[in-house]
Amino acid sequence: MSGSTGKTWRLLVVGGDAAGMTAASHVRRADPGADIVVVERGNHTSYSMCGIPYLVGGEVDDADALVVRTPEEFREQSMTVHMRTEALSADPAARTVHLRDLESGEERDEPYDALLIATGAHPFTPDVEGLETFGHVVHTLDEGEALRRHLDERAVAGGPAVRDAAVVGGGYIGMEIAEALVRRGVDAVLIDRAAQVMNKALDPDMAAHVERALRDFGVKLRLGEDLKVVTGSGGRATEVTTSAGTYPADVVILAAGSRPNAALAESAGCALGGTGAVVVDAQMRTSVEGVWAAGDVVESRDLVAGLRRNVQLGTHANKQGKVAAIDLLAARHGGRGAAAFPGVVGTAVTKVCDWEIGRTGLHEGDAREAGVAYAATAFDTTARAGYMADAGVVHVKMLAEERTGRVLGCQLVGSGNVAKRIDVAAVWCQLGVTVQQAQLLDLSYAPPFGGVWDLLQVAARKLTHDLGLSPQL
Amino acid sequence: MSGSTGKTWRLLVVGGDAAGMTAASHVRRADPGADIVVVERGNHTSYSMCGIPYLVGGEVDDADALVVRTPEEFREQSMTVHMRTEALSADPAARTVHLRDLESGEERDEPYDALLIATGAHPFTPDVEGLETFGHVVHTLDEGEALRRHLDERAVAGGPAVRDAAVVGGGYIGMEIAEALVRRGVDAVLIDRAAQVMNKALDPDMAAHVERALRDFGVKLRLGEDLKVVTGSGGRATEVTTSAGTYPADVVILAAGSRPNAALAESAGCALGGTGAVVVDAQMRTSVEGVWAAGDVVESRDLVAGLRRNVQLGTHANKQGKVAAIDLLAARHGGRGAAAFPGVVGTAVTKVCDWEIGRTGLHEGDAREAGVAYAATAFDTTARAGYMADAGVVHVKMLAEERTGRVLGCQLVGSGNVAKRIDVAAVWCQLGVTVQQAQLLDLSYAPPFGGVWDLLQVAARKLTHDLGLSPQL
Repeated sequence: MSGSTGKTWRLLVVGGDAAGMTAASHVRRADPGADIVVVERGNHTSYSMCGIPYLVGGEVDDADALVVRTPEEFREQSMTVHMRTEALSADPAARTVHLRDLESGEERDEPYDALLIATGAHPFTPDVEGLETFGHVVHTLDEGEALRRHLDERAVAGGPAVRDAAVVGGGYIGMEIAEALVRRGVDAVLIDRAAQVMNKALDPDMAAHVERALRDFGVKLRLGEDLKVVTGSGGRATEVTTSAGTYPADVVILAAGSRPNAALAESAGCALGGTGAVVVDAQMRTSVEGVWAAGDVVESRDLVAGLRRNVQLGTHANKQGKVAAIDLLAARHGGRGAAAFPGVVGTAVTKVCDWEIGRTGLHEGDAREAGVAYAATAFDTTARAGYMADAGVVHVKMLAEERTGRVLGCQLVGSGNVAKRIDVAAVWCQLGVTVQQAQLLDLSYAPPFGGVWDLLQVAARKLTHDLGLSPQL
Repeated sequence: MSGSTGKTWRLLVVGGDAAGMTAASHVRRADPGADIVVVERGNHTSYSMCGIPYLVGGEVDDADALVVRTPEEFREQSMTVHMRTEALSADPAARTVHLRDLESGEERDEPYDALLIATGAHPFTPDVEGLETFGHVVHTLDEGEALRRHLDERAVAGGPAVRDAAVVGGGYIGMEIAEALVRRGVDAVLIDRAAQVMNKALDPDMAAHVERALRDFGVKLRLGEDLKVVTGSGGRATEVTTSAGTYPADVVILAAGSRPNAALAESAGCALGGTGAVVVDAQMRTSVEGVWAAGDVVESRDLVAGLRRNVQLGTHANKQGKVAAIDLLAARHGGRGAAAFPGVVGTAVTKVCDWEIGRTGLHEGDAREAGVAYAATAFDTTARAGYMADAGVVHVKMLAEERTGRVLGCQLVGSGNVAKRIDVAAVWCQLGVTVQQAQLLDLSYAPPFGGVWDLLQVAARKLTHDLGLSPQL
């Protein structure tokens, strides 16, 4: 029993990964008397989804290494955790969620005082014959493990059962998986209908550098090709056919993006946005009283473009889970949580075949779409001082708003140690720093880390010139 | 002939390195008719002073690689460049500088319309018997070359002439030189009277990590020891004696910090600050009309502590040279330059024995000195996700102001790829970002680059908690 009402207050969390378990843990710490019930469809709680490609590739040995906390550990913190349990619908008037136990098939209603929907996203499956039947997805840890087991299988003759693979989708996960496959000795084709990899993250000129790295590493790129059919036999894929050719494929991995799992929220009457994700305010409240949402299932405010996006990243899910927890605790007493999720600028990094990639804010495609008048600069430089051994190469691109000089976005692709440098530009984007300001900031310098003008400041100087802004250093 | 006055306008630049040549080049581009005269005491223009330890260590093969532009290249841009020429005094009433040709000994007066004093700094030599006679300094490229030649010498018996070295001063340059010596097979002791290395840059707890790295690499640390005497024979050092012992030393390298070369500015009547450096405004004007100063010779505003410091770094010198050039061109027509040097926050990075070190803002010593009420947090984390191979270790320390939560400073020491991450904290310090704000910024995440909470944001969260500020994520 806890709280001022005299009856036990119950938080029901649907979804046992980053957003959900961060919220549950925060509430546990803040209120030892709260009744916390977690419902998770899969076999794992709190794991690193971003680590799955490294599990597939073998750089991470054991799936358990990716699990931050097990259901048992949460139970030891006096939470009720129902694994392999799906939430089918919610009734906010009755304050219940209708559940199904996926093992027994039993259904029941679970009451709540506060409901947090942290249902995440599901892989998007293009409507292609054979894809649903023969395609692997690697969205959950269970699926990652299944793929890893499949790749570990040996053929009767003794060699690996999987020799050829097709990866569908040239985004972060698709590239990382394709690299992991080649690293394991599998022949991999990477198929994307777009004419470039990472088309949501990078402009074509920047993506070209990544494509070169992938090709050099041995990934066969099939860009601008539409997947037409996946052929298989005996329950296994044998080949894929695109608009341009047919490729052998003992395994087909689908990484064509994800869509928010908004059905539960929709059943509760929560407003969805244009992206299909749940609309929330800065405290992660949905449009329905007593219902919060956080993580991959929600829309976030894009602070640069001024629109809403569904961004699926663990880093946001963690923060949003905390913000939701703080607010739902405050709401028990009619208050509002002190924390506000400010929004996103679209920062992301990855590593592809020893090339580091960082991006933040708007790329040219985004800027055109958002109708922002901008200038862009792109150039090559070194990751260390030019006279140092292994100076490396960094391809730099930056965008700034025409009239104001506000930094709109940045893309870095480098053979050196550059990905985390994107965070500096991310802060500029988020705080509205202009290129005029940026060029005079006190950033660090030493020969092992670059030239005397930091590469981001070189970009800011170029843009200041190109836009005719003052002062021009 | 140029300008509205009908007579040729002459810029006289004293000092041919970063600040001076950046300014000269900018004026050259902006006004092809200007008469530009550069006076430099040494044999080189525009070189990377920070690259000298890498020249000594052999990672950079040739001193020429460190030269960005030679005197000849500047002459080709219609500048008059007098090498090996010293400026002894300035007479702002007559608008002349009194020069001495260091080769011929001849002296003369050189007239100017605008004077830029970019005379840099000189190594500080403690008053220790034998040090002046037997100590090497490595402040200029000439001196770096001389040391390199000395180390390259062979003994009559065939082995290296230099087997034992003593480095005096445990700052950036001292550590880098000591490492370079050990890399070359020389036995090196590093002597500092302070009980720690990098006492101006790092707190003792953070310096301890660097000291361990140096010791593991083979540098013998003699901290808390006062140098008493340098003994030599035949014009060469043989040993050094400190308050604690006597150490063999075929070569003694002095890296005990530098002092601004403010004598010329002083002769012109320019006000000097408490640091002994030249006081300038945001346009790099000195207190004397027609005289500007930039680079290692000036004081800069410390934006975090609110006081003035003499910070000697090429990155500031370059920016200040530009700002001065913009202003002295504007001043020809009675105007003021559009550029303003905003000040510094004390950002610096270095690499010591594969450990990366970054710092910005105030350390605890600085904060106490500045009388700022602060909280500090220090913890260890990994450079990559904990489950990745070679996750590395990063020691993190951050300071925030008590009442406001403003980020005051940050120190990072890591075995991974961390130094340039300091720039994010540097921007926070410079823009007055609070720990409450910082924890919710959209920074990048991927397993090869850290955990789902960026390490700087972990620090910001801890400080928010420790200071009892809101919201506490």
